[in-house]
Amino acid sequence: MLSWVDGRPAGQLSILDRGLAYGDGLFETLSVRHGKPRLLARHLTRLQEGLQRLRIALDLSALEAELLAFSGELGEGVAKLIVTRGEGLRGYAMPDAAQPRRILLGNPAPAYPVDNAVQGVRLFPCATRLAEQPLLAGLKHLNRLEQVLARGEWQDPAYAEGLMCDSSGRVIEAVFSNLFLVRDGVLLTADLSRCGVAGVMRAELLQRASEAGIAVQVRDITHAELLAADEVFLCNSLYGIWPVRELQGRDWSVGPLTRKLQALIRSLLDS
Amino acid sequence: MLSWVDGRPAGQLSILDRGLAYGDGLFETLSVRHGKPRLLARHLTRLQEGLQRLRIALDLSALEAELLAFSGELGEGVAKLIVTRGEGLRGYAMPDAAQPRRILLGNPAPAYPVDNAVQGVRLFPCATRLAEQPLLAGLKHLNRLEQVLARGEWQDPAYAEGLMCDSSGRVIEAVFSNLFLVRDGVLLTADLSRCGVAGVMRAELLQRASEAGIAVQVRDITHAELLAADEVFLCNSLYGIWPVRELQGRDWSVGPLTRKLQALIRSLLDS
Repeated sequence: MLSWVDGRPAGQLSILDRGLAYGDGLFETLSVRHGKPRLLARHLTRLQEGLQRLRIALDLSALEAELLAFSGELGEGVAKLIVTRGEGLRGYAMPDAAQPRRILLGNPAPAYPVDNAVQGVRLFPCATRLAEQPLLAGLKHLNRLEQVLARGEWQDPAYAEGLMCDSSGRVIEAVFSNLFLVRDGVLLTADLSRCGVAGVMRAELLQRASEAGIAVQVRDITHAELLAADEVFLCNSLYGIWPVRELQGRDWSVGPLTRKLQALIRSLLDS
Repeated sequence: MLSWVDGRPAGQLSILDRGLAYGDGLFETLSVRHGKPRLLARHLTRLQEGLQRLRIALDLSALEAELLAFSGELGEGVAKLIVTRGEGLRGYAMPDAAQPRRILLGNPAPAYPVDNAVQGVRLFPCATRLAEQPLLAGLKHLNRLEQVLARGEWQDPAYAEGLMCDSSGRVIEAVFSNLFLVRDGVLLTADLSRCGVAGVMRAELLQRASEAGIAVQVRDITHAELLAADEVFLCNSLYGIWPVRELQGRDWSVGPLTRKLQALIRSLLDS
């Protein structure tokens, strides 16, 4: 497996790293095609927001060059980038002299069933709720036990993803995807200012839909609104868009706006 | 520095470890004196609770033997144990075949000012709130970004610790300590069923106080109750008890119940 630590081929890191000790860092998962990372600017923008909020000082232009070099070597697949605050001794205080660490892992593209994008997927209703933490909301940080617990709730492969609500019951996202719904021709996705991960495909879709003249709203969504929606779909940067065809006994057929958005991002996914 | 990975001297681990990827694991920080870990049974009890909730299958008796051997080699200081779910490929799903990993780090005992336990400490009022997540509350898991952010709020060494409230404003704990207060002769500490770390010294104090005939209550505590308290103190398994002498302009002198509890746990701290 292709893997680099701080720009050099390596498969291990120090057990003193604060990424291990506290989940003190961030990650990005990039689709790589023909040696190039897709949606790179959006991934870097989200990473930069995370670095600022966690106060990790990392040279983003050097990182960008590293990501391009790694993607060139990987060719096709998924590049996972982990950035940590670096090494530290015992204690939560941010070390003055910490050198942020970059870890890059290359993997083949995940082998999702083609039908997921065509026929749609069933959504498992996760009991695990997302805690509300505005200081970390939106970031793709390394504290991901909620997702581990939620994904552990089902084994049945009939469910491709799981719905996650926040502790107040609002609809937020899926375990490794963002969620959109369509109601009366308006495209809706959850406000992520209290919890959730602000996906790069979500951002891309919001922009492309807007440019295509589709009305978009980012706001709180109730569970009742989700079940009453005309169309529901999931997205992430690796698989694009999966229509949702069933949740808790409610069935949907794949709707016209979902198909239109799939067409709008086709160029990002085709090889 | 003394360090073991899976029972053998090592200072590195695989970048595929889920402890790094997701903070998918737990830790314990044990005081080691004369080659023996103190409060070992309590540390193992909390760890076991965490392993069950995270569904990590680890042989605790083998781990206990390893902790004893490591402490014997360390002699004096602090043994930090990290247990992770082990290695996994990309994705939140718990791998069927994952082998949990044990990491042990030896450090000298932290050099806290002696005055902290004698004169008491000043408490910084952290703005970072603890999110409410009952599924993880009480555990010493590896998702600790809230503590990193809270500890990053102050640099002034005049503050030895920082107060943390939950997102509803209830008083919960300090960044690396539990908090107690005394009101009308009753010893009070926060209910940790929504957030917070259930410290082993907190558990030990609750038991010893109860056995000494002191009335104890574990329940929600408001900020107003904290400021109105007769005595306030912090505790953890490394330093024992620090009286709190100041928070937000409110001053306390060290009270009789605090001194009595310090005496009750003296044997756990003396070398």
